[in-house]
Amino acid sequence: MISTAATAATARERMLLAKDAARQIGLLSDERKRDALLAIAGAIESAAPAVVAANAEDLERGRATGLSAGLLDRLRLDEPRVAALAAAVRDVAALPDPVGRVLDERVLPSGVRLQKVSVPFGVIGSIYEARPNVTVDIAALAVRSGNAVVLRGGTAAERSNAALITAMRDALAEQGIDPEAIQTVDDFGREGARELMNARGIVDVLVPRGSAQLIETVVTESSVPVIETGAGVVHIVLDESAPLEWARDIVVNAKVQRPSVCNAVETVLVVRGAASRLVDPVVAALQDAGVTVHGDEAVAALAPGVVPATDADWQTEYMSLDLAMRVVDDLDEALAHIRRYSTHHTESIITQDDANAERFLAEVDSAVVMANASTRFTDGGEFGFGAEVGISTQKLHARGPMGLPELTSTKWLARGSGQVRS
Amino acid sequence: MISTAATAATARERMLLAKDAARQIGLLSDERKRDALLAIAGAIESAAPAVVAANAEDLERGRATGLSAGLLDRLRLDEPRVAALAAAVRDVAALPDPVGRVLDERVLPSGVRLQKVSVPFGVIGSIYEARPNVTVDIAALAVRSGNAVVLRGGTAAERSNAALITAMRDALAEQGIDPEAIQTVDDFGREGARELMNARGIVDVLVPRGSAQLIETVVTESSVPVIETGAGVVHIVLDESAPLEWARDIVVNAKVQRPSVCNAVETVLVVRGAASRLVDPVVAALQDAGVTVHGDEAVAALAPGVVPATDADWQTEYMSLDLAMRVVDDLDEALAHIRRYSTHHTESIITQDDANAERFLAEVDSAVVMANASTRFTDGGEFGFGAEVGISTQKLHARGPMGLPELTSTKWLARGSGQVRS
Repeated sequence: MISTAATAATARERMLLAKDAARQIGLLSDERKRDALLAIAGAIESAAPAVVAANAEDLERGRATGLSAGLLDRLRLDEPRVAALAAAVRDVAALPDPVGRVLDERVLPSGVRLQKVSVPFGVIGSIYEARPNVTVDIAALAVRSGNAVVLRGGTAAERSNAALITAMRDALAEQGIDPEAIQTVDDFGREGARELMNARGIVDVLVPRGSAQLIETVVTESSVPVIETGAGVVHIVLDESAPLEWARDIVVNAKVQRPSVCNAVETVLVVRGAASRLVDPVVAALQDAGVTVHGDEAVAALAPGVVPATDADWQTEYMSLDLAMRVVDDLDEALAHIRRYSTHHTESIITQDDANAERFLAEVDSAVVMANASTRFTDGGEFGFGAEVGISTQKLHARGPMGLPELTSTKWLARGSGQVRS
Repeated sequence: MISTAATAATARERMLLAKDAARQIGLLSDERKRDALLAIAGAIESAAPAVVAANAEDLERGRATGLSAGLLDRLRLDEPRVAALAAAVRDVAALPDPVGRVLDERVLPSGVRLQKVSVPFGVIGSIYEARPNVTVDIAALAVRSGNAVVLRGGTAAERSNAALITAMRDALAEQGIDPEAIQTVDDFGREGARELMNARGIVDVLVPRGSAQLIETVVTESSVPVIETGAGVVHIVLDESAPLEWARDIVVNAKVQRPSVCNAVETVLVVRGAASRLVDPVVAALQDAGVTVHGDEAVAALAPGVVPATDADWQTEYMSLDLAMRVVDDLDEALAHIRRYSTHHTESIITQDDANAERFLAEVDSAVVMANASTRFTDGGEFGFGAEVGISTQKLHARGPMGLPELTSTKWLARGSGQVRS
């Protein structure tokens, strides 16, 4: 086995090597990129014992430094989890090549032929937290879209990430592809992250993944353009005409199916005219499913066992079996609440009034706005993208679930025969 | 006449007023936005005497503080120039509405109907230098695309901008549109610019226009997402097979037609095999047109009157009748030179070798890559966009000439009938 562990002396040198490698990987055919990913999947499987051993060191250090049980579980890689990583890489290999699509075509009056085509960004940077699966995930998506990648995965998963990255780099080298296309700055600690955020001109786009605080830091400090992915303080409005069954089923699904993800609902706003009809049965169904409901006084007056909500509740992404509920006078007040507290991820209204549904869809300023559906549908897989790079909550470049095409930029090609501008 | 001069006490308050106004303007019909622009054009014409008087004060202060003749000319507004501003607004009014386009449509297996539609950004910020025409330009493009705008136009044009902005705000108010949709932070000086760059959550995107230094400052300091528009160190490569006539005509056109703009060529790279055939006549044609050619030794040996080029020449966007020329060994060396010095705006190759043309188109990493055409074609008007917001040299969101659609974001709308995720 080749050993191509990343060894350049500085973080900046590593990034320059990645930039160089980006030229080669950016021009590879669909087939060669697919073959590279299949080789990466195989290499990850072969490296499973080494990866699990490296991960054991990370876990031991994590336990010693007091990582929570939840974080330790996210960090853990056993043989089945490594196999799942390899399988995910094969899924990415099967996706269509996002590079080389002709997005616009026009012939200028002078006869110059113009084409707007999709091209790789070049170098994608990613800063994320102790989740070794993100290492493989982002690297695979980058290779599929012809990009080089520079990873900064956090100290807690350092050994696991190093083992995975070495396996992936070896696979590239065996395929005749410059292994510097998969790069890490993990071993430079915080300095590596800082260099990555300031690598304007080398790194083309930075995708932070992790806590709201991590994302805030990257957005604020980076001079490299950032795609913000996001925190979700997600709202469901129960309109006056909301059918009880839809209201109950959608709220419970949106909260309970997977409470720790960004598309789970956090706040339910009930229009006053529907409160006496809906609050009690919806709260009861949530409580039956193990949810603690934090309600305002009007909610508490209509349902037993409600914990009093404070202003902090409206701002909280619980990521747990907690939910905030408030009675609002009307749709106007619901929209004002959403304007104030939404993180612009996903909001849904449950209603049988088409005018109210269309008003909600038009006026709510979020990446995904729904009528009569669970907010859990906001997901690249559910949207049919095949893979999800993250869910963008910003308005530039990409908004909502991002698939492989969102990892490309564009370029205009102009073919002439001596034309000059008059 | 109403007077709606911007008066809120702080730059932040002004921006919050713009954010509020964005909700209204973002929902206006095509017709109402068009009417608003026609009213703005009329108001600018009516305000011409006041605008010219305000401009005279700016010019006087500019002369006193020693502004260059070129900058004074850019700053000057006489009655015909004001009429041209109004005419430009009418041109923008005639463009199709970029909002509400359905960009993607799919039905999920559960029956939820998804649509991806174009929506306004919300609030666009712009930081630019002493050119009052940009004030009207950006405001008109913002209104056409349903966005509010916050302008920071520089102290040198402060009075002119204030007069134009008041006229535009009055016109909005008369149309029943919240005038806070056109906002300025000019009277807060540098502090206004700083607040604008840090108005994350209020301002959705920032478009700097002006010198490379201005753009660099905004990109580095802003926490609001920036669309970088750009400096152009633009290259033309004369390949071994380049026909003399194409080479000469295209190089002269690309340099001479309008030397002060970003798509003008700055550096010509001549492949060695063509040097003895092309350098002398191309240099002569440039010199005939008044161009000073800065050449390396090989160029100087082949043509008379060439000024010696230094490394600084390869990095310079002259914006004048100067041009740098270098002989390179082959296409590889030309591509390496471009990688090192290009600002990723526009590059063109002159060749009759299709393989070399296609290699150049594939490998050069610039917003617009050409074969056998003048770099002056990189322009929103030439591309048929009807208006140009600027030429993006970044890879995120927009690349190359930006038209009105580039001033929109997207939103996913989901319409269901009670669906939950299984």
